[in-house]
Amino acid sequence: MRILFIGDIVGKPGRRAIRELLPNIICTHDIDFIIANCENAASGFGITREIVDELYRSSIDVLTSGNHIWDKKEIRDFVEDYEYLLRPANYPEGTPGWGRVLFTTQAGINVGILNLAGRVFMQPIDCPFRTAEKELAAFAGKANIIVVDMHAEATSEKKALGWYLDGRVSAVLGTHTHVQTADEEILPGGTAYISDAGMTGPFDSVIGVKKDVVIEKFLYQIPNRFDVAKGDVRLQGVMFDVNEKDGKCSRIQRLSVRLDS
Amino acid sequence: MRILFIGDIVGKPGRRAIRELLPNIICTHDIDFIIANCENAASGFGITREIVDELYRSSIDVLTSGNHIWDKKEIRDFVEDYEYLLRPANYPEGTPGWGRVLFTTQAGINVGILNLAGRVFMQPIDCPFRTAEKELAAFAGKANIIVVDMHAEATSEKKALGWYLDGRVSAVLGTHTHVQTADEEILPGGTAYISDAGMTGPFDSVIGVKKDVVIEKFLYQIPNRFDVAKGDVRLQGVMFDVNEKDGKCSRIQRLSVRLDS
Amino acid sequence: MRILFIGDIVGKPGRRAIRELLPNIICTHDIDFIIANCENAASGFGITREIVDELYRSSIDVLTSGNHIWDKKEIRDFVEDYEYLLRPANYPEGTPGWGRVLFTTQAGINVGILNLAGRVFMQPIDCPFRTAEKELAAFAGKANIIVVDMHAEATSEKKALGWYLDGRVSAVLGTHTHVQTADEEILPGGTAYISDAGMTGPFDSVIGVKKDVVIEKFLYQIPNRFDVAKGDVRLQGVMFDVNEKDGKCSRIQRLSVRLDS
Amino acid sequence: MRILFIGDIVGKPGRRAIRELLPNIICTHDIDFIIANCENAASGFGITREIVDELYRSSIDVLTSGNHIWDKKEIRDFVEDYEYLLRPANYPEGTPGWGRVLFTTQAGINVGILNLAGRVFMQPIDCPFRTAEKELAAFAGKANIIVVDMHAEATSEKKALGWYLDGRVSAVLGTHTHVQTADEEILPGGTAYISDAGMTGPFDSVIGVKKDVVIEKFLYQIPNRFDVAKGDVRLQGVMFDVNEKDGKCSRIQRLSVRLDS
Ligand SMILES: [Fe+2]
Ligand SMILES: [Fe+2]
Ligand SMILES: [Fe+2]
Ligand SMILES: [Fe+2]
Ligand SMILES: [Fe+2]
Ligand SMILES: [Fe+2]
Ligand SMILES: [Fe+2]
Ligand SMILES: [Fe+2]
Repeated sequence: MRILFIGDIVGKPGRRAIRELLPNIICTHDIDFIIANCENAASGFGITREIVDELYRSSIDVLTSGNHIWDKKEIRDFVEDYEYLLRPANYPEGTPGWGRVLFTTQAGINVGILNLAGRVFMQPIDCPFRTAEKELAAFAGKANIIVVDMHAEATSEKKALGWYLDGRVSAVLGTHTHVQTADEEILPGGTAYISDAGMTGPFDSVIGVKKDVVIEKFLYQIPNRFDVAKGDVRLQGVMFDVNEKDGKCSRIQRLSVRLDS
Repeated sequence: MRILFIGDIVGKPGRRAIRELLPNIICTHDIDFIIANCENAASGFGITREIVDELYRSSIDVLTSGNHIWDKKEIRDFVEDYEYLLRPANYPEGTPGWGRVLFTTQAGINVGILNLAGRVFMQPIDCPFRTAEKELAAFAGKANIIVVDMHAEATSEKKALGWYLDGRVSAVLGTHTHVQTADEEILPGGTAYISDAGMTGPFDSVIGVKKDVVIEKFLYQIPNRFDVAKGDVRLQGVMFDVNEKDGKCSRIQRLSVRLDS
Repeated sequence: MRILFIGDIVGKPGRRAIRELLPNIICTHDIDFIIANCENAASGFGITREIVDELYRSSIDVLTSGNHIWDKKEIRDFVEDYEYLLRPANYPEGTPGWGRVLFTTQAGINVGILNLAGRVFMQPIDCPFRTAEKELAAFAGKANIIVVDMHAEATSEKKALGWYLDGRVSAVLGTHTHVQTADEEILPGGTAYISDAGMTGPFDSVIGVKKDVVIEKFLYQIPNRFDVAKGDVRLQGVMFDVNEKDGKCSRIQRLSVRLDS
Repeated sequence: MRILFIGDIVGKPGRRAIRELLPNIICTHDIDFIIANCENAASGFGITREIVDELYRSSIDVLTSGNHIWDKKEIRDFVEDYEYLLRPANYPEGTPGWGRVLFTTQAGINVGILNLAGRVFMQPIDCPFRTAEKELAAFAGKANIIVVDMHAEATSEKKALGWYLDGRVSAVLGTHTHVQTADEEILPGGTAYISDAGMTGPFDSVIGVKKDVVIEKFLYQIPNRFDVAKGDVRLQGVMFDVNEKDGKCSRIQRLSVRLDS
């Protein structure tokens, strides 16, 4: 089974990349299942009900997210209306939404998806390692295939989680930095790993945002309006092949496709 | 002219990778000039006089560094003894050492090397953007080729600096996260860019450190002794081709070479 | 000469405290000159032109500020219209506004006011120590009395600055934490010091903000609307006596006055 | 019942203050029970077995601590040998030591002591609010009097916890910043509160450390050896009166006593 995992979708350009590039990618690479991180899908900050609907119509099966999922206030009202929309599981008990879901493909295969967030240089939510432990237990006996979106800043925290879960999940895939890393590999236990899957959005930018505004922010340290950039739109992510019997991965491959302008 | 830039050398395994892999890389790829980041070369923390000497003997021309350069106290005594050993230029005036150097190759070509460090999630030193401005002025008329090591954590700060210097330097190359990124490219103005050149050291690790110790740190948040790991040693970096007349780059390529164990 | 320094004015309750309590304080304590930190005066975030005018009408002579001064976008347009409205001087060159001003009292006495901000757990702006050095040089020969508002989070950074400037300025007074400290003292060189002057605003709150909202923020780590609280309004600050000849302080006293509800 | 809570004891000067000042304080103020924060008691960093013994001999009943408790490696071996030595309770499960203890005074009164640590600008350990909830449940029916040491940096987090526990514990007393605050009060529910109890150690210093070294650290941002200062030794803390029947407080008073040199 081949799974495609798509890095943070940023704003309108990111959604356009999904709409225009995804059908061909699915076809060319024979993709069976698609997960995408949507935390920046609504003009760079959060997500709306309309955009969730739009992304599902684009053949994405499950949406994961991260710290930015809360940026549009309305998320709290609708996050639980969508079974396949996740926020990091290690937000504390009582937080709206779910961090884990079991998806059954048309072929009848169960895939467990778990969303986690890091804490280094981020919010002090619950321990992602211990939460993983607990959530894996909840998947036990229900899914051989488990895919983890580890939404985190620090490379150390992501890689540590990869090693921690090696052999127990099918993949640990980082998001949040918006820069695809070149360290994709199959860990010894059969877990596909990459520190960051990259970004789906405008690359004539600083991680999706208009360059000038970000440079000005660094120069003056004054709050600034961060608008999504426009040019050089790409879709990035990773594809990996999972054995449906044991959930082990045999291959992981980075993907970066440019939209013709 | 082809320049090789080597990502953070970590401990004894990293130095062994340099010793055993570098001669062949130089030969195969026809390398003219070598820069390497040495902030973790002495058992993961800082550098010693002996190790500086050892690295120079391995054909490295210029050593850059970052926040960890100060970890061994003795650095303050010897950092100014080595013209081609840099610490980030944006440490405040009065800090021992230099952040910029002009190197003249055997072929008589001048190469300016500038070391900077980021401030997001790091020490609040001087502004890297303004320091770059000032240091470039100092290179004016002396070197067409300028290579910048931007030692930083946040992808936004690195990429913003890349755009800021595009067309004014030959390359902006990130270090510090120890994870090579897949975003190497030639920016429109002719500047070679990568967010992180990667690590030269043991990869059976969390960014060079023994896995178990790092996982325990994340689990209990208690200080821990971070020892350099051993297995799966690799040399990572980027090579790029610079036009000696105008300092523009035409090509950048990632490098990751494994040491046979 | 007796100077009153008022801690961060928070929202409408803070301004009401100024309006209703200040006249009596001036009279009772024979105050000659008044400085107040206004970074939270407009509904907790930043300041508007109208509020600057209102505060000046309340007998405040000079307004200092801090990181929140930028919260209302319009500040950039009007900050330079007010000679006696300061933002921290160690924002980088090119930032709108000024960080230092010379005020001549009706009695003809020159008072230099310098606003600085810390960098520990805050924005990485310029070094407050070096900026102080530079700004003091600008006051040289113009004012014997110099008052410094050090807007900072970490007690270590504030106290270090106090010692650094001891004997060279009349007072180093902390702001930003909204909690008055009990460490007011005259340092050996004659400089009045306190780590935090406190808050002028509603104390039935968490540092001025409605309690429930802040507790919820800590419980769930999700962004929240921070509204200014209402009850238990107080005016806080410090008074200190300066010798007009040499700028030395002989006495510093904390002030905390409650508004009858 | 009158309880004395002593702020962070720093190094040899802090221990000397305890030894020489405490007997008289106990006598003068008729103290029934003593808690002290010991995280910096061993040369500024952590604690040793010998120092724990020494502090108990000085009439301290219970020792609390904070993030620095782990600085001397040996703590892990002996922390569980002392029933009345606490580390913050919200370190994750599996961490050596305990965060809560029930003490029965000679008069037969049960006092529950709970140690917590903040997470803002600190390690991302477990939620202090939820841990408090859990630990209070463990005290239920066993102690009317409960004293909380909230070891934290941010005033907002400390005050929010104070409000959160108001009426449910006898006192919430902050530590960690080493600067005594002037906001001691009895909250409406009968809980004694102060944001920081202060420091017991040398005040001719920056929060206990030699001034020059700290200033140099701020100036150059390079790691430095932080030695405990010597002069102007004081003992700081708060005293509060608790009703033994219902655990409510009627009075809280700051204490700052200077050692004659
Ligand atoms: Fe994102
Ligand atoms: Fe994110
Ligand atoms: Fe490094
Ligand atoms: Fe580094
Ligand atoms: Fe404020
Ligand atoms: Fe502030
Ligand atoms: Fe402490
Ligand atoms: Fe502490």
